[in-house]
Amino acid sequence: MDVACYTAESSDSPLTKSTLSRRELRSDDCLLEIRWAGICHSDIHTVNGDWPHDNFPMTPGHEIIGKIIETGPDVQKFTTGDVVGIGCLVDSCGTCRACVDNEENYCEEGATGTYNGVDRHDGSITQGGYSTHIVCREDFLIRIPEAFSDLESDQAASATPLLCAGITTFSPLQNAGVGPGSRVGIVGMGGLGHVAVQIAAAMGAEVSVFSHGLSKKDDGLRLGATNYVATADEGFDKPFRDTFDVIIDTVSAPHDVNPFIKMLGRKGRLVLLGLPTEAMQIPAGLLIGKGRSVLGSAIGGIKQTQDMIDFCAEHNITAETEVIPAEQINEAYQRVIDSDVRYRFVIDAATF
Amino acid sequence: MDVACYTAESSDSPLTKSTLSRRELRSDDCLLEIRWAGICHSDIHTVNGDWPHDNFPMTPGHEIIGKIIETGPDVQKFTTGDVVGIGCLVDSCGTCRACVDNEENYCEEGATGTYNGVDRHDGSITQGGYSTHIVCREDFLIRIPEAFSDLESDQAASATPLLCAGITTFSPLQNAGVGPGSRVGIVGMGGLGHVAVQIAAAMGAEVSVFSHGLSKKDDGLRLGATNYVATADEGFDKPFRDTFDVIIDTVSAPHDVNPFIKMLGRKGRLVLLGLPTEAMQIPAGLLIGKGRSVLGSAIGGIKQTQDMIDFCAEHNITAETEVIPAEQINEAYQRVIDSDVRYRFVIDAATF
Repeated sequence: MDVACYTAESSDSPLTKSTLSRRELRSDDCLLEIRWAGICHSDIHTVNGDWPHDNFPMTPGHEIIGKIIETGPDVQKFTTGDVVGIGCLVDSCGTCRACVDNEENYCEEGATGTYNGVDRHDGSITQGGYSTHIVCREDFLIRIPEAFSDLESDQAASATPLLCAGITTFSPLQNAGVGPGSRVGIVGMGGLGHVAVQIAAAMGAEVSVFSHGLSKKDDGLRLGATNYVATADEGFDKPFRDTFDVIIDTVSAPHDVNPFIKMLGRKGRLVLLGLPTEAMQIPAGLLIGKGRSVLGSAIGGIKQTQDMIDFCAEHNITAETEVIPAEQINEAYQRVIDSDVRYRFVIDAATF
Repeated sequence: MDVACYTAESSDSPLTKSTLSRRELRSDDCLLEIRWAGICHSDIHTVNGDWPHDNFPMTPGHEIIGKIIETGPDVQKFTTGDVVGIGCLVDSCGTCRACVDNEENYCEEGATGTYNGVDRHDGSITQGGYSTHIVCREDFLIRIPEAFSDLESDQAASATPLLCAGITTFSPLQNAGVGPGSRVGIVGMGGLGHVAVQIAAAMGAEVSVFSHGLSKKDDGLRLGATNYVATADEGFDKPFRDTFDVIIDTVSAPHDVNPFIKMLGRKGRLVLLGLPTEAMQIPAGLLIGKGRSVLGSAIGGIKQTQDMIDFCAEHNITAETEVIPAEQINEAYQRVIDSDVRYRFVIDAATF
C-alpha cells in the first residue's frame, strides 16, 4: 500500500512530503497506523549522509507508537487495536547466539534497522516512522503499557522517544546492575541524558549529571539528579574521584574521557553511547589500578526494550517532548543540531 | 630479628647480599622461613625506579612460598609447619567496600604491598621475599595445597610465581566467567602469558596465543593453546575478527590494542594487565557496535588467590621456571629484560 511520509531525496535535500510503498503483510507481520514518530539525532546524521551506508530516498524514524490495524495469519501475540511501539530494529537472523540471548541488537548477521536497512526477505530498503503506516514482524513490536496507551494523550507522545533513548540508556544501567545505593553519573543532558537521569534515579541510584554548563540544572534536579556539575569548570572531576559505579557518556562531540574514568570507583564502568569522530586516548594505568572498564553499548534487545517501557510506565518516566507537525521537521532538525530543544521532538503522524 | 636478604641500595645499584630486620610478631602475625622467591618483571621496574614511590634500600619479591615457624597468640587459621604463600599484598584496611568484598587488591585506602609499601601500624617500609624470613598477617597468607607443599620439590618452586602471575591472570578469566565453550585470546607469551594459557585451557576455553613471533609456538601449544599467531604478520587479526569472549593482554611495551578489540565478539572484553607508557588510542565505535569493553585488572583478592592456587594444584598448573641461586639475581634481571627466560626465575632462598 502507498502511504504518506516525509522523505529526503538525497543527503543534501530537506525532508519533503511524499509517499512510499509498504509491503503486503507476510504471515507474521502487523500493519500499524502510526500516531507518533520521534526525532532522534541519529536520524539527522543518517539523512545528512554523515555515516556510511546511506540509501536514498530515505524516510527516517525509529521511535514509533501506533495501533495495529491488520495482522498476518500467523500473528500470535497481538491483535487489531493493540497499541504497540517500534524502536531501532525490525528484524534479525533469529538464530545466532546474540539473537538466542535476546540481544538482537548485536545480531551476528547484523540486525535490520527500522530505516536505511535491508529487508532480509526481499532485499528492499527499509523505511521508517515518519509516515502514516508501517509493517513490522510481530517479534519486533513492543507492547505499550496502559499508562502510555491512550494514543491521543501527551503520555503516549512523550513515551515515543523511549523506544530509542529509553532503551539505549536503560540497557547499560540494567546490565551494570544499577540499584539502590549505586552511584551513577550521566554525561550530557540531552535527549539521551535527560531520560537516563530519570531511569537511573528510578532504579534507586544517586545520580550526578555532568553537562557543559548549568543551563539545564533545574531540569536535571527536577528529573532526579542529586548533583549537577559543569564540565567547563576546571577540575570539575576532583570532588568525585573514585566514586561512581557507572558513568553513562551520551556525548557525541569529541571530548576527553579521562576525567570521567578518574571518577569511577572500583570496577566502575564508563559506558559510551555517543560516537565521537576522534579516537579516545586512554592510559592503561587509569583502568588497571581500580579494575575499571570502558565499554560501548548499542541500543538493547527486544525483550529488554519491553522491560524498559514497562519500567518507565511503572515509574512515570517519559521524555520531555515538543510535539510538532510534519511540516516543521526540517526546522526541528536544525534546532536539534543547535541543541535548542528540551529535550526531544515528536512528530504528530496525523500531519504526514 | 635480622635476616639475610638481597637488597638494592638505590635505583642504580645492583642487588647485593645484605641483612634486614623483620618485626617482632604482632598477635595475628606468622613468621615464615622462605624456601622459594620468584622474580617478577615488576620487581625490576620497581628496583630500577621506573615507577613512582620507590623506597630504598629495597628488598623486592612478592612471590613467596615457605613454612610457618612461629605464630602470634591470636593466629587462628595456621600453625607451625604449615606451608604457605605470600603474593603481592600483606595488608589492607579490612573495612572498606573492596576489602569486605574480598577485593583487598582494590582497597580504597590502598593495600599494603609486600615490598616498597608502608606498614599500616608502624609506618615502616615493607621488605619482600628475597630474604630468608618474612613476617605477615595470617589473613594475607595463602595455604599451599598438597600438590605443591613438598618444599624441596620442583613443584613447590614452580608454583611460587603463581602467587603473582597466576592470580593476575586467573582473576580476570574467572571474573569474566570463562568456562567450556569460551574463546580466550592471550597476548604475550611471557611470565604472565604462559600461565594464562594453562589456566584458560584448564577452565575449558579454546585458547589462542598472540605473540610477536613464533619462537615459543611449541610451548604455547604444549601448554594448551589451539592457535598460536604471530602479531608481526600483517592482518594477523583478520581470521579472528568478532570471535573472542576475552582477550588477556599481558604486554607492557607500547602497542596498538585495536586489532585485539576487533577480534572481540559480542560483549567481549579486552583485559589489560600491562602498563604501556603511552596512552591507548581507541575509537569509541569499535566498542559500541558489539558492546565490547576494555578493562584493567590488578592482581586479585586473597580469597581469589586461594581459589587460584587450589585450581592450579587440581589441574597441575605451574609456571615453567629456572631456579637460580641468589648470586645470579642481577644476571637474571638482565635476562628478564632481554626476554631470555622461559618463563620465570625462582630464587632458592637457601642461598640468600
